[in-house]
Amino acid sequence: MHDDSATDAQHTDQSADRPTGPASDPDATDGDEFTVTPYDVAGTVDYDRLLEQFGADRLTDEQVARFPDHPMLRRRVFYAGRDADRYLAAAEAGETHSIVTGIGPSGPMHLGHVLVFYLAKRLQDETGAHVYIPLSDDEKFFAKDLSFDEIEAATRSNLRDLLAVGFDPERTRVVVDRLDADVVYPQAARVAADITQSTVDATYGDPDNVGLSFYPAVQATHLLLPQLVHGRHPTLVPIAVDQDPHVRVCRDVAAKERFDVDKPGALLGKFLPALDGPGKMSASSDAPAVELTDDRETVGEKIMQHAHSGGRVDIDEHRERGGDPSVDVAYQYLHTFFEPDDQRVEELAADYRSGELLTGELKEIAAERIGAFLAEHRERRGALGDLESELAPYRLTEEERARLRPSVFA
Amino acid sequence: MHDDSATDAQHTDQSADRPTGPASDPDATDGDEFTVTPYDVAGTVDYDRLLEQFGADRLTDEQVARFPDHPMLRRRVFYAGRDADRYLAAAEAGETHSIVTGIGPSGPMHLGHVLVFYLAKRLQDETGAHVYIPLSDDEKFFAKDLSFDEIEAATRSNLRDLLAVGFDPERTRVVVDRLDADVVYPQAARVAADITQSTVDATYGDPDNVGLSFYPAVQATHLLLPQLVHGRHPTLVPIAVDQDPHVRVCRDVAAKERFDVDKPGALLGKFLPALDGPGKMSASSDAPAVELTDDRETVGEKIMQHAHSGGRVDIDEHRERGGDPSVDVAYQYLHTFFEPDDQRVEELAADYRSGELLTGELKEIAAERIGAFLAEHRERRGALGDLESELAPYRLTEEERARLRPSVFA
Repeated sequence: MHDDSATDAQHTDQSADRPTGPASDPDATDGDEFTVTPYDVAGTVDYDRLLEQFGADRLTDEQVARFPDHPMLRRRVFYAGRDADRYLAAAEAGETHSIVTGIGPSGPMHLGHVLVFYLAKRLQDETGAHVYIPLSDDEKFFAKDLSFDEIEAATRSNLRDLLAVGFDPERTRVVVDRLDADVVYPQAARVAADITQSTVDATYGDPDNVGLSFYPAVQATHLLLPQLVHGRHPTLVPIAVDQDPHVRVCRDVAAKERFDVDKPGALLGKFLPALDGPGKMSASSDAPAVELTDDRETVGEKIMQHAHSGGRVDIDEHRERGGDPSVDVAYQYLHTFFEPDDQRVEELAADYRSGELLTGELKEIAAERIGAFLAEHRERRGALGDLESELAPYRLTEEERARLRPSVFA
Repeated sequence: MHDDSATDAQHTDQSADRPTGPASDPDATDGDEFTVTPYDVAGTVDYDRLLEQFGADRLTDEQVARFPDHPMLRRRVFYAGRDADRYLAAAEAGETHSIVTGIGPSGPMHLGHVLVFYLAKRLQDETGAHVYIPLSDDEKFFAKDLSFDEIEAATRSNLRDLLAVGFDPERTRVVVDRLDADVVYPQAARVAADITQSTVDATYGDPDNVGLSFYPAVQATHLLLPQLVHGRHPTLVPIAVDQDPHVRVCRDVAAKERFDVDKPGALLGKFLPALDGPGKMSASSDAPAVELTDDRETVGEKIMQHAHSGGRVDIDEHRERGGDPSVDVAYQYLHTFFEPDDQRVEELAADYRSGELLTGELKEIAAERIGAFLAEHRERRGALGDLESELAPYRLTEEERARLRPSVFA
């Protein structure tokens, strides 16, 4: 998938290319108009129309029930998919099944980036899923005005956050495109012959440089990697819905005779709003993002000061008319991930709508939950030793590499 | 340069994309019209107009005199260049200087491919030039309907021929794109950000797939590799003149602030004709090419049967009116490489023109010289042991690789 595959990670990362709201985006001034491509999200997104447009399927209650229980699925933050049944069948049968979810290392990892990795860990813990995590340090160089020094600093920081999630090293592989170029490039070359430039132009718009022209081949390689290592099996790519075109490009490649692989499946998610509100993407907005290194106090300050509120302008009006949880960012964060109890999250919504629960109170609850979550993440992150040694058990083994490398001397 | 960088290697290799003669090429029916791009040579080439068009410089007598003596320079098979003076100055001063000349492994190496490697060896022997030899197994996959199995078989065969040339392993590096992807891809990624898709489209025509879009970045990396390993210094790329656009793309990249490198220089060469005549490129013609594995008898048969003759239709007319050495392929081969004695080669031309020397006699001389050359080449090739072990001293060392790899954990 695209490197930024956390629910809102794509947006955080690709902020520079994106409008930050109606004022800067002509398309967004009309409520019915919206644009969603991997490099551009504008307007108010109609998630149902997107599925029609992309030809993906809404998750059924039955499918959700078959997944390990998780708020992001139960509450349909991930609300649609491709070939989810094949994945579920393999997971249920104890057969090989994989998740692929990566990140583009252009800066520190934000709260929104990390949630999908915790979802992946949950799927791994419950059904033994392989988890493949590609870091696209190459794409960040092609797409952004960043030096490799900056990208490598971000890579090191992101790797520490990924390690802090606590994946099973037996079943998890972290791949950094340039660091693992010995296997990534030969496989991407194989894929590249099956991706036309016109497909890339149509999917992503005209690329600025030949790195961006080629990158879809690298990305398709990411999605195929579990199968190239372990043989044909169902894979699932949890990804924000706007990144679905990446999956489709790879599915077309996978369908060619050249590859003995299944088409990768997808779990398509909604965008987690930035602190300052729905429709704005975290790093593209003016509000600071919650970073994984923020302590409880900082998290509290950011949420109290910047989280967009669905409440009324003053307490009296709020008590009388109630707030709107659907646009309240504190509530959205609790709903997406941080309040696992369904009954409790519904109570919060009801109390907010009735006016009983005030904005400040709701924000405090969210800040407390997020602060506690991050404190644990930070503790695990802080306990890590030397990065190269810590990462070693998660890198492709020599035997796995041998399956991916060209056999020139064979 | 383009992977096929022997004087006529480009043509042998890219035959599938090229017209084989006037009948199949509308441009070529008009003697004044010719087209030269890296993927298309058509018509009768005007080598002077090409220099104007490309903005390169004809080699001066003084420059030729400063190069180590070699028939391909002395007789202006390599007739033009870019920044040849910088290279010559470094060679004369005993400073680091490099030659880059590679090959695209799509089949067995032909006679025309190998000559430039012998020229490079001569330059290495005389002035200590570093010689870098890239093999573009990736590009052959992107550009041709070949499997990686076929490309790898060609790679092994080509590597044996390269080893048979007898380069100094201390000063020679052979790089195979997919085999050495750990260093080639990270460097190509760095280059790729500086090559626009529109540059590629304008230089090479619209690419069929994203591999071909990206490949110019890999190729520019080939040309910069000696400098990326040993620091900034003059490099020279001996290349058929139609491949000059590859050099120009790299020179533009080299001029960016991102790289502390000199623009690579070029030695631009004329096309060695295929056996069946000037204007036809060896593998694109119907005549068999002289392969490096041909024994003396086979070489003799191929030349006697297929070499285009500049002689008259019968002996009487030939004796009376004389032959035309400028279109006689046997003579061209002797002139290009196989008759090192200038006086002798002029005598042959004069005798042929006068009618004293018959076509059959001229062919016998050429067959004898080529057969002897190939017998020696074949003997060295046959004496090689296990390919991987033989190649080892010519591969980038761990220390050299460390300079080219990304420093993620630094």
